[in-house]
Amino acid sequence: MNKITNVLAERYASKSMKDIWSGAGRIVMERELWIAVMKAQKDLGLDVTDEVIKSYESVINIVNLDSIDSRERVTRHDVKARIEEFCELAGFEHIHKGMTSRDLTENVEQLQIYRSLKLIREKAVTTLYKMSLKATEYKDQIITARTHNVAAQPTTLGKRISMFGQELLLGLEHLDRVIENYSVRGIKGAVGTQIDQMTLFDGDTSKVRDLENKIVSHLGIKSSINAVGQVYPRSLDFTVVSALYSLTSGPSSFAKTLRIMAGNETASEGFAKGQVGSSAMPHKMNSRSCERVNGFHLILNGYMNMLGGLAGDQWNEGDVSCSVVRRVALPDSFFAVDGLFETFLTILDQFETFPAVIESENNHYFPFLSTTTIMMEAVKKGAGREAAHEAIKEHAVQTVKDLRNGIVKDNDLLERLAEDSRLGLDITELQSIIDRGRELVGAANSQVSTFTNEVEKWIKLYPNAKFYNPGSIL
Amino acid sequence: MNKITNVLAERYASKSMKDIWSGAGRIVMERELWIAVMKAQKDLGLDVTDEVIKSYESVINIVNLDSIDSRERVTRHDVKARIEEFCELAGFEHIHKGMTSRDLTENVEQLQIYRSLKLIREKAVTTLYKMSLKATEYKDQIITARTHNVAAQPTTLGKRISMFGQELLLGLEHLDRVIENYSVRGIKGAVGTQIDQMTLFDGDTSKVRDLENKIVSHLGIKSSINAVGQVYPRSLDFTVVSALYSLTSGPSSFAKTLRIMAGNETASEGFAKGQVGSSAMPHKMNSRSCERVNGFHLILNGYMNMLGGLAGDQWNEGDVSCSVVRRVALPDSFFAVDGLFETFLTILDQFETFPAVIESENNHYFPFLSTTTIMMEAVKKGAGREAAHEAIKEHAVQTVKDLRNGIVKDNDLLERLAEDSRLGLDITELQSIIDRGRELVGAANSQVSTFTNEVEKWIKLYPNAKFYNPGSIL
Amino acid sequence: MNKITNVLAERYASKSMKDIWSGAGRIVMERELWIAVMKAQKDLGLDVTDEVIKSYESVINIVNLDSIDSRERVTRHDVKARIEEFCELAGFEHIHKGMTSRDLTENVEQLQIYRSLKLIREKAVTTLYKMSLKATEYKDQIITARTHNVAAQPTTLGKRISMFGQELLLGLEHLDRVIENYSVRGIKGAVGTQIDQMTLFDGDTSKVRDLENKIVSHLGIKSSINAVGQVYPRSLDFTVVSALYSLTSGPSSFAKTLRIMAGNETASEGFAKGQVGSSAMPHKMNSRSCERVNGFHLILNGYMNMLGGLAGDQWNEGDVSCSVVRRVALPDSFFAVDGLFETFLTILDQFETFPAVIESENNHYFPFLSTTTIMMEAVKKGAGREAAHEAIKEHAVQTVKDLRNGIVKDNDLLERLAEDSRLGLDITELQSIIDRGRELVGAANSQVSTFTNEVEKWIKLYPNAKFYNPGSIL
Amino acid sequence: MNKITNVLAERYASKSMKDIWSGAGRIVMERELWIAVMKAQKDLGLDVTDEVIKSYESVINIVNLDSIDSRERVTRHDVKARIEEFCELAGFEHIHKGMTSRDLTENVEQLQIYRSLKLIREKAVTTLYKMSLKATEYKDQIITARTHNVAAQPTTLGKRISMFGQELLLGLEHLDRVIENYSVRGIKGAVGTQIDQMTLFDGDTSKVRDLENKIVSHLGIKSSINAVGQVYPRSLDFTVVSALYSLTSGPSSFAKTLRIMAGNETASEGFAKGQVGSSAMPHKMNSRSCERVNGFHLILNGYMNMLGGLAGDQWNEGDVSCSVVRRVALPDSFFAVDGLFETFLTILDQFETFPAVIESENNHYFPFLSTTTIMMEAVKKGAGREAAHEAIKEHAVQTVKDLRNGIVKDNDLLERLAEDSRLGLDITELQSIIDRGRELVGAANSQVSTFTNEVEKWIKLYPNAKFYNPGSIL
Repeated sequence: MNKITNVLAERYASKSMKDIWSGAGRIVMERELWIAVMKAQKDLGLDVTDEVIKSYESVINIVNLDSIDSRERVTRHDVKARIEEFCELAGFEHIHKGMTSRDLTENVEQLQIYRSLKLIREKAVTTLYKMSLKATEYKDQIITARTHNVAAQPTTLGKRISMFGQELLLGLEHLDRVIENYSVRGIKGAVGTQIDQMTLFDGDTSKVRDLENKIVSHLGIKSSINAVGQVYPRSLDFTVVSALYSLTSGPSSFAKTLRIMAGNETASEGFAKGQVGSSAMPHKMNSRSCERVNGFHLILNGYMNMLGGLAGDQWNEGDVSCSVVRRVALPDSFFAVDGLFETFLTILDQFETFPAVIESENNHYFPFLSTTTIMMEAVKKGAGREAAHEAIKEHAVQTVKDLRNGIVKDNDLLERLAEDSRLGLDITELQSIIDRGRELVGAANSQVSTFTNEVEKWIKLYPNAKFYNPGSIL
Repeated sequence: MNKITNVLAERYASKSMKDIWSGAGRIVMERELWIAVMKAQKDLGLDVTDEVIKSYESVINIVNLDSIDSRERVTRHDVKARIEEFCELAGFEHIHKGMTSRDLTENVEQLQIYRSLKLIREKAVTTLYKMSLKATEYKDQIITARTHNVAAQPTTLGKRISMFGQELLLGLEHLDRVIENYSVRGIKGAVGTQIDQMTLFDGDTSKVRDLENKIVSHLGIKSSINAVGQVYPRSLDFTVVSALYSLTSGPSSFAKTLRIMAGNETASEGFAKGQVGSSAMPHKMNSRSCERVNGFHLILNGYMNMLGGLAGDQWNEGDVSCSVVRRVALPDSFFAVDGLFETFLTILDQFETFPAVIESENNHYFPFLSTTTIMMEAVKKGAGREAAHEAIKEHAVQTVKDLRNGIVKDNDLLERLAEDSRLGLDITELQSIIDRGRELVGAANSQVSTFTNEVEKWIKLYPNAKFYNPGSIL
Repeated sequence: MNKITNVLAERYASKSMKDIWSGAGRIVMERELWIAVMKAQKDLGLDVTDEVIKSYESVINIVNLDSIDSRERVTRHDVKARIEEFCELAGFEHIHKGMTSRDLTENVEQLQIYRSLKLIREKAVTTLYKMSLKATEYKDQIITARTHNVAAQPTTLGKRISMFGQELLLGLEHLDRVIENYSVRGIKGAVGTQIDQMTLFDGDTSKVRDLENKIVSHLGIKSSINAVGQVYPRSLDFTVVSALYSLTSGPSSFAKTLRIMAGNETASEGFAKGQVGSSAMPHKMNSRSCERVNGFHLILNGYMNMLGGLAGDQWNEGDVSCSVVRRVALPDSFFAVDGLFETFLTILDQFETFPAVIESENNHYFPFLSTTTIMMEAVKKGAGREAAHEAIKEHAVQTVKDLRNGIVKDNDLLERLAEDSRLGLDITELQSIIDRGRELVGAANSQVSTFTNEVEKWIKLYPNAKFYNPGSIL
Repeated sequence: MNKITNVLAERYASKSMKDIWSGAGRIVMERELWIAVMKAQKDLGLDVTDEVIKSYESVINIVNLDSIDSRERVTRHDVKARIEEFCELAGFEHIHKGMTSRDLTENVEQLQIYRSLKLIREKAVTTLYKMSLKATEYKDQIITARTHNVAAQPTTLGKRISMFGQELLLGLEHLDRVIENYSVRGIKGAVGTQIDQMTLFDGDTSKVRDLENKIVSHLGIKSSINAVGQVYPRSLDFTVVSALYSLTSGPSSFAKTLRIMAGNETASEGFAKGQVGSSAMPHKMNSRSCERVNGFHLILNGYMNMLGGLAGDQWNEGDVSCSVVRRVALPDSFFAVDGLFETFLTILDQFETFPAVIESENNHYFPFLSTTTIMMEAVKKGAGREAAHEAIKEHAVQTVKDLRNGIVKDNDLLERLAEDSRLGLDITELQSIIDRGRELVGAANSQVSTFTNEVEKWIKLYPNAKFYNPGSIL
């Protein structure tokens, strides 16, 4: 029978991410760890020959999942099955000395997590890079900022993109700290006392410590956790996935906003190259990818909830109530976050704006947004403050009503004000106030620059990130 | 009518935490912010006199919540009501210039969060200190480590405590990084463009930046967020509370383990001083406080879920779908985490062990845990490997059965093995194997020392934490 | 010091809901239960005099929370404190016979839940009633249905309201089944074996059963749970709050949609009577209440998460790791759901539409939505299928582009098509197609009627619901 | 490359559940729906011949996923690809008339949900049946009931099992109501107005209604939802999965309790037939399956969280932000709940108790649990109440201390009391009090009977459930 596949992996995740979590990929990581342990044991004086190590190394990539599977059905023990397979391939029985299952599996799973985190970090840098390009491209595009989804003040589209980018930047800095401080369980034995390695090295604590340090450094991770039980603290998994959740909140909010903008036809996630709208509905540029980004963010929330339920629920030196949960939630969190970035990068690549519609929206709202300035100018020119206030209020409220009731089609507030003698401003003066008001985007540009500069620092750290392009999405 | 009180605050939280989130406490923080803005504006050349500032400063602590409340009922605008009240007290109308409501409320709420985080950080240091004392006290207390809640290998109680302490330490380091990198929204205006301050300072960007820096430094926070909208990114709230959740996972797991230990009568959370068990049930030392710690951890999960739902759901430059959620989830998260530590510190203070029961548990299990060593010794003394293995297996399985069936009362495996000629070991030799096995706690002691040393570093940073004692709990 | 109040209760919940969960309200419910037990015990032959019962009844409403509080500080036992207070008031010591604390507290808490559920059920009926009125009012208002937030087909506003109402109806039916099948723990003793009541009635099982039945019937609940431990299964709390979450999903989706509609100015949650838009921003009708409804829904999610964490985590016959969680999550869930309905009812009362804007939106999109019909008509009149398809596609795509590029201001697709000889349709014919297309709302009206009829059935069951009006909201 | 498989499906779920959610299974369900629609259209007068229908029916089971996949890569539209494939196989193009994609997919997905729900309902009945057998088997096995995980009162093991069974029963009744009231979206068109079917039937509303009724009845579901948009309300998915969560809470709590019992060696989840404990650790019967049950319950919580996030977040007539979430959370919820029951049924089958250990625990605690009765008896025989109370308290507290300090090994409270002249009770009298106390399990037996009777009713409804046996688990 056809097996049921993992939807997140097979439909949305990139090959690099799938490689980390694939069955074969994991087997190879395990074998690398075993070999690293043997080498360390040899360096520290245990009797392991180069020939043995070479034999294992020579078969490291011969991965036959079916054969391992058959062994597991006999032994009913997954790690034992993998030991037997590797040993038979190599023709020796020297791996896994002084190790328990968890000495293997905990470290390898942490390595999968660590490599996935680094992959995501780089993808986030790519995303920031593309956002900074868009922010720069649209830094002079005045748009109507909205609060409560209602027109509030002018801003620029570049500033709006920077705002969501800034959130991603905060998320990246947070994630980066999680990565840089990530530590592994190390070789600690069945209950964390390192008794088996202690026995192997005749109670020589310093050799036991050296062995662990060599392994940690083999993994490429900075440190190991001092006192653990059978397993490392599960709050660490939660911390990792919660950092992914924080990280993806900026893109998710941008995606929501773009869905709303698409509804107003001011911008759109665009179409894949070559794709066009249907003739029946040429206007229908559905924000399917933005919707998907929001979906991935929610999925992450669910996996985080699972991992959060493990944290703080560990009994004694450990149990496996976490096992099935981690088997699901760890890879799937990374597939989801990977799919989210792949999708979001595609959105950025195909992002479109409709300046004429944006302009029309601005024209519709800016007269209202400038009433305070109009009043000040009227007063300056001699109008009574109360009278001016009253006049403006009357006309503004009436204009809104007339627009909503279809009595006028375009915002004609300025014309109305020009005709009201209480204010003493003619249409040219009023129009000039609006025109100046339109430019009142304050520090928007300097914020865009600051954002772009901050992104530049990350690009220097991860120069390849500049050139990454997402795979084609469904 | 009596108002319904906040259970978490009034039943469980400390006075220091309540002060941060009380109505009056917040009013004072707001006023401090207004005054800081005025001072900065004065320094930067705006026309604000010392007299004005002094007038405001002199009434800063006169907080009449009822009066503010009445004003709000008239204005239907909470910030406006607080402005009016403060101005009337001071006799001037100089605060809030160039500011919008969010310039006040966002920064003040972030200040509440920041101060709460620092309070919790220090409480976590106290907790670690007390855990390190206990770990040291019990570093030679051999106990039966359990995996799957079943006896696995010897360890020490000091090591077990260090293991949970280690998780708290990881959580503290994570929280500390969140605190040290926490940044505030700053004075950014209604949609984040700083237009009002720009206007106030005639478009002088550097003055606007200076003003914000002064305010950020008044708040005691290291930096502000460059590009924001009406509000700061809500993922920041999520990041904060998820760090609290990670932080409290170690204590929560310890509490669960202690509930299980209490069920075996090896240890207990003890009683409050002066309290004794009831005569009817003198054995009944209920782990009520440990249960409560687990309850608080779950509560945090719920609030984190609320705040997680805000992250990634921000539209345009902002709205207030977050308002009611943050009103509930922010203070209540901190009351919960505060109550958790108050409770957990009390548990640590009253923690009791029952060494005779621990010893009896050890005696029950250690013979089984030593069978591998027994076999090796038998073989060394000349027994056939197969025969020895067979003999030990027979007796071990039968002893377990007999114990479970009540046929024997104490673990008599050694006696059985001594009588079996296939092994060739007498009872003295066997007992000596067990006695040595009992000591096989590997690197447990060195892990305790390392843990204690790491805690010591934190105590140096927060020397007062050593002297904090929890309030009395219900 | 002023106590910190419960924000959800004091800011958002109705008086009826607060009464159920207030300290005094609970005390009275407890006393009613004690009296009900005494009466049942008397009926079943135990020696309790009418005088005793009357004495207790006469003081049932004398609730002095401070006095009870002082007693608790002495006894360190909350139930004992309340027993003493009630007994001293009555001058007898006859209550709580054969009862343990949980016999009191579990049943009273379930009663609070049950009464709250009924209150919410009725409020949901009111909501449906108001939605059915609106659905009827707007049943002929053609609007542009949107999928992916982009124009899709015509529908009616009445239909859209019915759609959200239908979801509420599904939620109500579900809630109603939860209520009608709600069962209480009953009088079961410390571990659920009813041993104390068995002793009191000399082992007479049928009397014990009778007593419980009388109590259950006093509470007004249909049945009790047969086999329980110290507490009732906590999944029941989860089931209750998850039903509230389902119930409020319809209103929450409607609120989101209304926030989007407000952004397009097709509809609005309106203003409170007497309130008007500010003169500075007369167009700014912020959807604050809709945002709040979404906030409440998220809050419910968080409390549900807390209660979900209790379900499936009960050890043996029970413990109190649920205690602090339920103290928070149960009342606060009901305050939140109550606040949600109060807010949503206000939205319905003040709901406004702007038909001219709706009409303008329709005009903008309907020509595109009718292209399929246009093609069929062209073919009928003799045009070649391929040529017609090609012509329509060309013009439609170009019109969209021109609209988005500001080249045309209004959708002039019809004019373009009229001028294209490949189609052979004049402007009158085309306009008539559009006009007919506009009416193509299919079964929208019959769906509105069906919805209204279903609501009518509920109104018959809860006739008072028709007259309920929400309190004024902040 | 090997595809990454769905862990929950491939490792834990039963074949029946996988069949419902497999790619091929779904294709067949879709085709059945199309055929049902054609038949209904024919019955209602549309021009569809028997030959056409037969042609489609004859190829319904020829499912070539690869071929469909290739078509999707061309059309970029999943439903279109499936239409083409089916049509080419049948040699006609008659399916999907008047239907939109969602008319197909929504109904088929609901059918998958509905069938899965029924499968789980029956599995829950099997579980209850096995629990009722165990409850009966152990109805006379006295055990020490625990509250706060500490000995509280006697109960029976049968009662304890009934208690958890009762929670499952409540969950089943709730689930059953969800199933019996489950309704489908029906054939409603792109925005829910049924415009396409209306057109097909020339505006004949009653025919449109008839068609939908026929389809609903084809699906075997009782009713359809009157007013919907493009999709059915997503709160329905949440309601379904939250019912699964409630349902599995009883088994989850039982699993936790069994993990604790295994730690005390009073009971165990046992071993698979043929499996024995290792010789090295013959006592180590790890509660791996119980831990897994708890893991599955947590996984369900996470998926529920995802689906909960969709509810109340639907915009206008619908979008696809739910798409990726439902693709993951719906099948995986059912795989998880299925795996949970498969595992739990295995636990029940292999459940073991250790009566001698239970008895020893009882002997350890019952003297303490009987002190109240001892006092009453002493008073009856003439002892002063105060003196008796004092004597008992002294001895009880001292005995606990001596036990915990290893001064005595067995609970000798009775001997101590017998020697104290203040009480006037000899050892025989005291022992007889204890022996009677031990039997004081109140209504435990009658509760077991009631539980068993309730289960019997379900077995009558689902007689096959009695014979279901779980597959072998890993």
